[in-house]
Amino acid sequence: MNANDAQTGSTAMKGGGYYSLSTVGAKDVIDGAGDLVIRALEAHLQSGNGKDAFTIADMGCADGGTSLDMIHRVVGQVRKHDPQRPIRLIYEDQPTNDYNALFQNVRATQPDGNSLATMPDVYWYAAPVSFYEQVLPAGTLNLGFSATAMHWLSAKPCEISNHVQAVGAQGRELEAFAEQGRKDWERILSCRASELAPEGRMIIVNFCRDESGQYLGNTGGINMFDIFRNLWENFVREDVITADEFERMTLPQYYNCVEEFKAPFEAPDGVAHLAGLRLEHIETRVVPCPYAARFHSGEWDAPTFAHFYIPTLRSWTESTFFSGLSESRPAEDRHAIIERYYNAYEALVAHEPEQHSMDYVHAYMVIRKVG
Amino acid sequence: MNANDAQTGSTAMKGGGYYSLSTVGAKDVIDGAGDLVIRALEAHLQSGNGKDAFTIADMGCADGGTSLDMIHRVVGQVRKHDPQRPIRLIYEDQPTNDYNALFQNVRATQPDGNSLATMPDVYWYAAPVSFYEQVLPAGTLNLGFSATAMHWLSAKPCEISNHVQAVGAQGRELEAFAEQGRKDWERILSCRASELAPEGRMIIVNFCRDESGQYLGNTGGINMFDIFRNLWENFVREDVITADEFERMTLPQYYNCVEEFKAPFEAPDGVAHLAGLRLEHIETRVVPCPYAARFHSGEWDAPTFAHFYIPTLRSWTESTFFSGLSESRPAEDRHAIIERYYNAYEALVAHEPEQHSMDYVHAYMVIRKVG
Ligand SMILES: C[S@@+](CC[C@H](N)C(=O)[O-])C[C@H]1O[C@@H](n2cnc3c(N)ncnc32)[C@H](O)[C@@H]1O
Ligand SMILES: C[S@@+](CC[C@H](N)C(=O)[O-])C[C@H]1O[C@@H](n2cnc3c(N)ncnc32)[C@H](O)[C@@H]1O
Repeated sequence: MNANDAQTGSTAMKGGGYYSLSTVGAKDVIDGAGDLVIRALEAHLQSGNGKDAFTIADMGCADGGTSLDMIHRVVGQVRKHDPQRPIRLIYEDQPTNDYNALFQNVRATQPDGNSLATMPDVYWYAAPVSFYEQVLPAGTLNLGFSATAMHWLSAKPCEISNHVQAVGAQGRELEAFAEQGRKDWERILSCRASELAPEGRMIIVNFCRDESGQYLGNTGGINMFDIFRNLWENFVREDVITADEFERMTLPQYYNCVEEFKAPFEAPDGVAHLAGLRLEHIETRVVPCPYAARFHSGEWDAPTFAHFYIPTLRSWTESTFFSGLSESRPAEDRHAIIERYYNAYEALVAHEPEQHSMDYVHAYMVIRKVG
Repeated sequence: MNANDAQTGSTAMKGGGYYSLSTVGAKDVIDGAGDLVIRALEAHLQSGNGKDAFTIADMGCADGGTSLDMIHRVVGQVRKHDPQRPIRLIYEDQPTNDYNALFQNVRATQPDGNSLATMPDVYWYAAPVSFYEQVLPAGTLNLGFSATAMHWLSAKPCEISNHVQAVGAQGRELEAFAEQGRKDWERILSCRASELAPEGRMIIVNFCRDESGQYLGNTGGINMFDIFRNLWENFVREDVITADEFERMTLPQYYNCVEEFKAPFEAPDGVAHLAGLRLEHIETRVVPCPYAARFHSGEWDAPTFAHFYIPTLRSWTESTFFSGLSESRPAEDRHAIIERYYNAYEALVAHEPEQHSMDYVHAYMVIRKVG
């Protein structure tokens, strides 16, 4: 994709497949999990459990674009192993997700001429239900998958007074987020434990803080979350927003470290262990920012890099930041502030492009339900 | 609902729950099938088949608003019979359906405080897949339901040169529609035969031509479809549209008569019979037009009746009529023609309100899959 393609794409796809285009990196992350997924699938199939429809879930699927290749690979593998077995595909996300874009992606014909919508005996559904609830009848999930979604908490435990994300929280605020993160991770695992079939597998690829303290956008250069924070603080100083508004700009997210991911599995009285879940594999990986890579390779100049880099940050921060703004401001003023904010970020990147990159830092986990 | 409520509703709900509001009659039709549904459900439950999740499908559900009460009734009944059994609800419609409106309706809290989205062990999904395909794995459907949907053909076999709907077709054109209707009805039944569990039941409430030749909008007064046709013909005479365009305004619909519904079940070599389906019950009913009723009762005056009557006709004819217009016309001209058309219809109704009503004429069928 050159800059022109992306330009056309980003205009045409607003509110459509926009997410997939603007997050090439997310697809790299998922494709990188492919071999883990296939090995886990093979192990489950070998266990010989279940002759019912083979059920696959993509939890927090968004528009399904980034996982489509991986899902095709899984479907192909199940078919190879058992050509007669019907396959059920459940795409799960929040009720507010753009399901029209999802349906288009799932129906789209792949380069090999296949489409999930036309493959015989593949049945696919959308479940507009949170992963904090049980989405499938007990014991019916053969292979669960989730990428880059379960860092979203079920609720914001408090505002973070001096930052926008828990990575910058301190003291009691940090404790509150850690506690919320712990409860939410346990709740996610409990729901999945009910859903999974005997010997079913689940591959979860989640944002994390890794063993050397790295996390999304904090892998060397400037810390992306500090920039988010500092730009808002400038706005407070310039009287664009109030101190109250600054405080409410708190992302309801928490990045577990490896120990936190492991905890519910470890003690014999851990919630996940008791529910029959075993953590078969966990590793952390850094996937480089595809935007910064294009800049470093010389494919993009600084303004082009900045132009395409910002939408990907914007896609997952805008709604939180917008809802932090006081409702007493007319909606158009709020939109103007948001525009100005991301423009300021873009100017910064164009000015010092070497400093910026949103490398992904993920924990890759394989979880088994005992048979 | 008084005229003012409806006014607010119809403005606020465009592209949202609009369909449900504008088609009170459709809900009457479904509620009227309630006892048939419950009896069929009871018979299936008594047969004792299956301990898997109890699976219910609403085929051609639109925004799910009109069937919500009936679905709640079914869910309650399954629960009463077997409190432990998980329930799977599949909402099926075309990919272009308004799924956001569906999700809102399903999640909405009912007067009794229940919502399908929060009832324990009820799992609900959307399947954006045509009923001309198999939507569920073989043998997994316990109770299928469809109302006022399966008169839409899978394809238009030809244009109808002198009318807009097959009820006005003649000669070879009529034959082509009857043949398409036959093949499509057989295809619908074959797909469902695969999906149904042993002793599973299906209640289909379809538009029909009844034993005395009545059908939608043709139960006494003026024939609604003739008006549709005549108003377009006026437009040809007035040079608003071309003869070509008139011809392309052909609804891809066919209303079976009772004999046509029965045919695939009757002969031992009938497609449905061979696939294990039995037609346990068929009857036709007329459900009076709720709009005309409000006029006749004196609740609405003629202009009010006309004002609210037209949107319900428009909701299911507009896209066909619009796509009949030549693409060489600028889109705004095409929209203007469509506006003018429904305005002409509205003026006619306001002028001679006693003549108009869109009474529903349905066949109610209960179909059983042999165990
Ligand atoms: C960053 S996107 C990831 C999309 C895709 N899985 C990928 O990796 O490219 C995160 C998705 O998680 C979804 N999400 C957030 N909270 C959720 C919840 N509680 N239940 C289900 N989905 C959720 C969001 O709506 C969003 O679509
Ligand atoms: C008149 S509405 C009926 C809605 C609801 N069942 C009721 O009775 O109020 C007809 C619905 O059938 C759907 N439909 C038409 N053809 C279809 C097909 N081939 N497969 C699935 N749904 C279809 C339309 O999209 C529309 O939502």
